[in-house]
Amino acid sequence: MSETIRSALREESTNIVKFNEALSDIIDESMQNGLFQSRFNPQHIASVLVGIYFNALITWSSAETKEDLKEIFHPQFEIVWEGIAAQ
Amino acid sequence: MSETIRSALREESTNIVKFNEALSDIIDESMQNGLFQSRFNPQHIASVLVGIYFNALITWSSAETKEDLKEIFHPQFEIVWEGIAAQ
Repeated sequence: MSETIRSALREESTNIVKFNEALSDIIDESMQNGLFQSRFNPQHIASVLVGIYFNALITWSSAETKEDLKEIFHPQFEIVWEGIAAQ
Repeated sequence: MSETIRSALREESTNIVKFNEALSDIIDESMQNGLFQSRFNPQHIASVLVGIYFNALITWSSAETKEDLKEIFHPQFEIVWEGIAAQ
């Protein structure tokens, strides 16, 4: 990665890590309440979701696509969801 | 996202998109050669893998973790792999 993005990520990573933690807490609570089931760790599930979310944002912000953010995110979410829900 | 990262991503996104395309081509070829099977689109699979890869890098580069990059990436890959391989 270029030095520019590396330094920006150093600044931004706290926010990304916080988003990850918040999502992880929500998933954990939902699993404990029986609203949501998965054999995977809530923190790892949250990381995967945050990963595809940011990647969708990056693809969307690039000049090369005219796709809607939802159109970029959704097919990635479908793949990930299959994994999360796998028995 | 902060303006810093937004502008850095504008610069870096071309590289990320190129990485995505290269990976997508490899997956596509492997599927055509029967080395790899999935009911999902190679481009979407590549996007998910790039997403968790960059997210693992971000988590790893943040000051809050002492984990190895592989230790961060692997559990996310396991979830995603279940999805990719789902029938």
